[in-house]
Amino acid sequence: MLLQNDQKQLLKRFKEVRYLSEQLTEPLEIEDFVVQGMADASPPKWHLAHTTWFFERFILKDHLAGYEELNPQFDYLFNSYYETIGPFHPRNQRGLLTRPTAKEVFSYRNYVNAHIEKLFNDLPESKAELVLDLLEIGLQHEQQHQELLLTDIKYNFAQNPLLPVYSEASEPSGINSREFAMIPIDGGLAEIGHSGRDFCFDNESPRHKVYLEPFSLASHPVTNGEYVKFIEGGGYEKPEYWLSDGWTHIKKEGWNAPMYWFKAEDGWNTFTLSGQKKIGLDEPVCHVSFYEADAYARWAGKRLPTEAEWEHALESTVCEGNFVESRNFHPRPANSRNGKFYQAYGDVWEWTASAYTPYPGSKPLEGALGEYNAKFMCNQMVLRGGSCATSSSHIRSSYRNFFQPEKRWQFSGFRLAEDAE
Amino acid sequence: MLLQNDQKQLLKRFKEVRYLSEQLTEPLEIEDFVVQGMADASPPKWHLAHTTWFFERFILKDHLAGYEELNPQFDYLFNSYYETIGPFHPRNQRGLLTRPTAKEVFSYRNYVNAHIEKLFNDLPESKAELVLDLLEIGLQHEQQHQELLLTDIKYNFAQNPLLPVYSEASEPSGINSREFAMIPIDGGLAEIGHSGRDFCFDNESPRHKVYLEPFSLASHPVTNGEYVKFIEGGGYEKPEYWLSDGWTHIKKEGWNAPMYWFKAEDGWNTFTLSGQKKIGLDEPVCHVSFYEADAYARWAGKRLPTEAEWEHALESTVCEGNFVESRNFHPRPANSRNGKFYQAYGDVWEWTASAYTPYPGSKPLEGALGEYNAKFMCNQMVLRGGSCATSSSHIRSSYRNFFQPEKRWQFSGFRLAEDAE
Amino acid sequence: MLLQNDQKQLLKRFKEVRYLSEQLTEPLEIEDFVVQGMADASPPKWHLAHTTWFFERFILKDHLAGYEELNPQFDYLFNSYYETIGPFHPRNQRGLLTRPTAKEVFSYRNYVNAHIEKLFNDLPESKAELVLDLLEIGLQHEQQHQELLLTDIKYNFAQNPLLPVYSEASEPSGINSREFAMIPIDGGLAEIGHSGRDFCFDNESPRHKVYLEPFSLASHPVTNGEYVKFIEGGGYEKPEYWLSDGWTHIKKEGWNAPMYWFKAEDGWNTFTLSGQKKIGLDEPVCHVSFYEADAYARWAGKRLPTEAEWEHALESTVCEGNFVESRNFHPRPANSRNGKFYQAYGDVWEWTASAYTPYPGSKPLEGALGEYNAKFMCNQMVLRGGSCATSSSHIRSSYRNFFQPEKRWQFSGFRLAEDAE
Amino acid sequence: MLLQNDQKQLLKRFKEVRYLSEQLTEPLEIEDFVVQGMADASPPKWHLAHTTWFFERFILKDHLAGYEELNPQFDYLFNSYYETIGPFHPRNQRGLLTRPTAKEVFSYRNYVNAHIEKLFNDLPESKAELVLDLLEIGLQHEQQHQELLLTDIKYNFAQNPLLPVYSEASEPSGINSREFAMIPIDGGLAEIGHSGRDFCFDNESPRHKVYLEPFSLASHPVTNGEYVKFIEGGGYEKPEYWLSDGWTHIKKEGWNAPMYWFKAEDGWNTFTLSGQKKIGLDEPVCHVSFYEADAYARWAGKRLPTEAEWEHALESTVCEGNFVESRNFHPRPANSRNGKFYQAYGDVWEWTASAYTPYPGSKPLEGALGEYNAKFMCNQMVLRGGSCATSSSHIRSSYRNFFQPEKRWQFSGFRLAEDAE
Ligand SMILES: [Fe+3]
Ligand SMILES: [Fe+3]
Ligand SMILES: [Fe+3]
Ligand SMILES: [Fe+3]
Repeated sequence: MLLQNDQKQLLKRFKEVRYLSEQLTEPLEIEDFVVQGMADASPPKWHLAHTTWFFERFILKDHLAGYEELNPQFDYLFNSYYETIGPFHPRNQRGLLTRPTAKEVFSYRNYVNAHIEKLFNDLPESKAELVLDLLEIGLQHEQQHQELLLTDIKYNFAQNPLLPVYSEASEPSGINSREFAMIPIDGGLAEIGHSGRDFCFDNESPRHKVYLEPFSLASHPVTNGEYVKFIEGGGYEKPEYWLSDGWTHIKKEGWNAPMYWFKAEDGWNTFTLSGQKKIGLDEPVCHVSFYEADAYARWAGKRLPTEAEWEHALESTVCEGNFVESRNFHPRPANSRNGKFYQAYGDVWEWTASAYTPYPGSKPLEGALGEYNAKFMCNQMVLRGGSCATSSSHIRSSYRNFFQPEKRWQFSGFRLAEDAE
Repeated sequence: MLLQNDQKQLLKRFKEVRYLSEQLTEPLEIEDFVVQGMADASPPKWHLAHTTWFFERFILKDHLAGYEELNPQFDYLFNSYYETIGPFHPRNQRGLLTRPTAKEVFSYRNYVNAHIEKLFNDLPESKAELVLDLLEIGLQHEQQHQELLLTDIKYNFAQNPLLPVYSEASEPSGINSREFAMIPIDGGLAEIGHSGRDFCFDNESPRHKVYLEPFSLASHPVTNGEYVKFIEGGGYEKPEYWLSDGWTHIKKEGWNAPMYWFKAEDGWNTFTLSGQKKIGLDEPVCHVSFYEADAYARWAGKRLPTEAEWEHALESTVCEGNFVESRNFHPRPANSRNGKFYQAYGDVWEWTASAYTPYPGSKPLEGALGEYNAKFMCNQMVLRGGSCATSSSHIRSSYRNFFQPEKRWQFSGFRLAEDAE
Repeated sequence: MLLQNDQKQLLKRFKEVRYLSEQLTEPLEIEDFVVQGMADASPPKWHLAHTTWFFERFILKDHLAGYEELNPQFDYLFNSYYETIGPFHPRNQRGLLTRPTAKEVFSYRNYVNAHIEKLFNDLPESKAELVLDLLEIGLQHEQQHQELLLTDIKYNFAQNPLLPVYSEASEPSGINSREFAMIPIDGGLAEIGHSGRDFCFDNESPRHKVYLEPFSLASHPVTNGEYVKFIEGGGYEKPEYWLSDGWTHIKKEGWNAPMYWFKAEDGWNTFTLSGQKKIGLDEPVCHVSFYEADAYARWAGKRLPTEAEWEHALESTVCEGNFVESRNFHPRPANSRNGKFYQAYGDVWEWTASAYTPYPGSKPLEGALGEYNAKFMCNQMVLRGGSCATSSSHIRSSYRNFFQPEKRWQFSGFRLAEDAE
Repeated sequence: MLLQNDQKQLLKRFKEVRYLSEQLTEPLEIEDFVVQGMADASPPKWHLAHTTWFFERFILKDHLAGYEELNPQFDYLFNSYYETIGPFHPRNQRGLLTRPTAKEVFSYRNYVNAHIEKLFNDLPESKAELVLDLLEIGLQHEQQHQELLLTDIKYNFAQNPLLPVYSEASEPSGINSREFAMIPIDGGLAEIGHSGRDFCFDNESPRHKVYLEPFSLASHPVTNGEYVKFIEGGGYEKPEYWLSDGWTHIKKEGWNAPMYWFKAEDGWNTFTLSGQKKIGLDEPVCHVSFYEADAYARWAGKRLPTEAEWEHALESTVCEGNFVESRNFHPRPANSRNGKFYQAYGDVWEWTASAYTPYPGSKPLEGALGEYNAKFMCNQMVLRGGSCATSSSHIRSSYRNFFQPEKRWQFSGFRLAEDAE
């Protein structure tokens, strides 16, 4: 009985999550569905199809008796990186595929949605727990791609000198009511990692002990206004602030400001999903790489927190904030406190000082889904807390996002820490 | 009066040529308009807009009083390579532009067409000759892009494992009735280059004397059946047949057959604008690079003709053949003789042994249009005779096409020659 | 008085360490001093000059009154990567410098050595502690470059089809007397990092607490014989064992065995500093990347130890082994036990599961020497324990070596670990 | 008897030519023999060995009974590009070979020289003609490499901030006594290509008819002084002067002057084999690419001559000039007239407007030597007239040198032409 209730809830959530992906593409022209502005940024059409393939491949093919794929070639076209499943279309050529058309991809979604509903209705009790777990993973997976959908559309639009607008900006949120503080946290043995029965990814468990020295954590993420001071103080010209790889990278790429920033007559402007605008000085700085976050921290005489520090300090903070539901698609100035801290969740992902490595005793999922997270545990840094493009139901204190240190097309910012004296 | 008659004719032709571009995109889905499969292959949308910009930029802006551009940014987006006009969008990023949409590009075409008609109607006699000359260039230019439209669509479609079909194949044309011969041509002083009052590009003139040794020229282009013997004889594995650059290139790229060929269970297949099919043994070989044409000739104990030999031998041959009007979009076996030679025009462009260099005494056009041809006279080889994607009204015996020796996405084949004994 | 005694000791050590660098180049022809086989591998001449420059730049220029550089351009040529000192010759162009000649570099060494001795003799007591500390860093630095000298010579020689021999092989060491075991280690709060007054690099301190789960650590590094089973079991062909970056890398590079291995008629051979030889099955596997170490561990159902586990388990093991002093220049089979473990030090550097990041509360050195270690704390993995090319006086349990995960020209192997049940 | 006389002459020449190669390396340090500053520039050691291998491989192995190679691996190491002989060491890795040492290469030279003398002494009359022809090719080949030896040493030295000096400069040659003129040449049927019984390469024959329009040819090559006006007039900033490939190339490379030029306090300086010096305004401009020569010509309202024009106009001019024998290793101002023209031979190679293609009826040599010239007849431009690094006995009016249009490390300049009015 309990299970049946869970099933209903999950079916409801399935429809909502699946619908949101489509809703997020409503502002697009057909042409916008095709393009891949860089290898990291998949075409919107591809995201819509790949998330669908995920349900087909990991659930329907294994658990819905007699299921037939809509098109067997989709297994090649829409497998992202699961080597153990079979060969897949090269990532950097996703944008060369004009077919299936956007319309055909929507049909594919409907086809798979209908079969998932069928599976819900006919689910034998013996399979229920396994299938519901897989469905939950499928939904979490689709939520991740919803965030990528937005960051990839933003990237693609920014390549076009016509600077298309995805969504009209909402009213500005008034000024920042923040009172900045470095908030002291005690050291000692602590625990981090997911606990409890709710969903988490395999990379968040097990909950485990860590020893922390006492430290302080900033009440707010660093703002545009603060970051401008770093720029104007020559931050991008002084190698002493930079990791060696970072210095090499910014010089090769010619970076001198966050991604999407450019100098206009009235000062620093940025490109947003609502078009070009002046940067908001009270907004958290966004679209910076780990290298830039780390350099800023050194310039400021501080450092980035480790992911253990971040989680330990912020896990009791209420998980509220500027998420995708608010339809801002851009970080906002801090205006409501969650305990001692502002903006712990939402607005911008926060780079940490931690490389993405396995937790002690961690076990990847069995089978192909084991490739979901564990095989990326190298050359990437952990980010925490979600962004303005994250679903509120997707984020939690133990959530580990990860990107290479030079990547900055995500809504990525950072918060400072320092050792206790 | 004569001029007015010319004007009417030209207006008629203007409408026909402009209409053909749009007709050639009728089989496309909206998504197909966007993609650029490689830097050489522009998106269909871009071709439609760029040819339109050409009329706007070189005619309307200078010669239609009070003309206002539909969108001033198009001067940046749709300038191809005219440095003296101003900066332009990088060629390899044309496929990242989702806007203007295909629909907006069609509106742009209508807008410019309407103004060209207006200009026709109000054309002061003092300007007539100049403007009609420019219009002719604009139409010839659009015809060139119609050919590129087809070769670029073919390239883009071939990148997609779903192998989309552009146009259903017409019936096969029956077998080749050819009788192969090497046809002797006398040597001595000859003349090549355009003569007469009809349109030609600046690279085709002046008509000038060349001294030719006696030689023979093949009655037909080399066929797929003949080319298969070269492949099966190890042609791609024996460096002695290859120019040094060619050998390096085929090894780097892993080439072992013409572009679009692949081995299927029933032997060599190829991808065409009508989808995958078995190669036709009597069809002229197509989609080969200059390097492959040259290597084949050496393997066969012959050579490629120079462009002077080609023109001298074939200028009196009637300009008929398998052009874009026949809607085959693919070369066909030889079936109708033009004098002693088959397929001199249409089917496949024929690589010559001649590097693309200026004719003695040649003068590029004045102004930005001087960049049209002359600035490419380096590192390219001349091709002659037009292809199945060329308009019959576009080709002539003096026409000089040119590509880098490694390029093969055009409908490019070749015909053999040899020295007289 | 104590200090004077220290001084004498240090001067003695200075002469010994400086002499060893030159001794290690004795087998070389002049031509061998020049070449840079890849960007990572500096020319022997460069190592000899750069280590000399280090003393000149960080000690003589600041602390020997009236010191004049032998050649002011050496500050540009032999600065490796100290951005805060000034511009430097591009790393990948070190091998294009034929001048200064090897002979001139030896003169440079003598010039600087003589001035260092002069400084020793005239050292005012007020400066003694600082200068002796800098000298110690200079010697440790030179010892690091002695190891690179050997690995770079090996790499350069291996590029030459004539396969030059650096040093005749010593007799084989007989068979391995090992009894393999996974040795259990208790968990709980532990301490790692350097303690005491001896020299350590800034990246080894402060000593700090870590919480460890109970685990086991292998008594021996993985051997060639064991690694061959991984290869023959298809290890390089099965993506499920590999990190995503590792899989991409081995496929791009075409790796299917450790560096320097190749299949000969009598089975796997390898290139060593004593020339080509059959691999020794009982020797520790060597010249593997982190990716390969990590993949092997997954194939074996185990994992790599973290650096904290490694240090905690092995810090009480006696620091003896096959070091550069033994003049083997190649790892040897295990033959003498140090407590429960074999080969903890020497033979091969051992990849750990730990990314190279700062210790809690760590402080880089002041000034340009702060660039020595800290700026590389990104995208690199920690290795522990020293190798057959390391000086015995250079290694200690807290020593942190670090390389990018794809690098394998160092003498790098690994030891397995696993979670306690 | 005649033959015997020829034989003696040839043996004398053999010794002289072989000796010159070694003499040209006398100023080098051992270290200088190893380095390859770019893929185009082979190490001096390699030139000395490759030219020796040429005699061994094409003469001794086929024609000296019982000849044994000094080292069979040299066939792999010192084959440059003869695919039909077998695999060879990659061109861009020639600089990674420290062995054989320079000393060993000199031994190799002695070994082969001794065997060639032996062959001379024992030459059966039946073989004499063939072998003497091959020896002649071997000597011509070595002379070509003597020029490359100088240009490659110059390139290598220029990569070193210490700017080594190869040879002290001779006294400046006083001012230029030239009277500049465009000298008219009649058009009509002409003949070019080698005639007579003296040696020529296979690419220079057969002598054949060409039809030339009347034209004028400059009395002198363009000078540094003239070229500076082009630079100062913004020549490198105006795309209208440039071929499209040239414009792309200079922008990618950041070129704004000839190779080796740089702005010093006292104006334009250049690096020469005698070190850095102020440019000589009356010297022919040197180290320019075809693109730069062509752009200059367009800026000057003229053009480059075709190779037929060059040869027709200059074949009767006496072949005297500033060659390698004068030991200037740098072009000099014009000071002695040869008929109407100055500096037709020596000083600088002159870029022509002609792509390097086969002459009508030309036949490459049989066998592997057929790869010597013919396989490069693509993507290269012809240069005429020899340079200050050419042997006077090596050059002639029909001599065709060829390089890719972007290359400029040779002593390459140019002379203007124009159509008759
Ligand atoms: Fe996914
Ligand atoms: Fe165009
Ligand atoms: Fe160093
Ligand atoms: Fe050669």
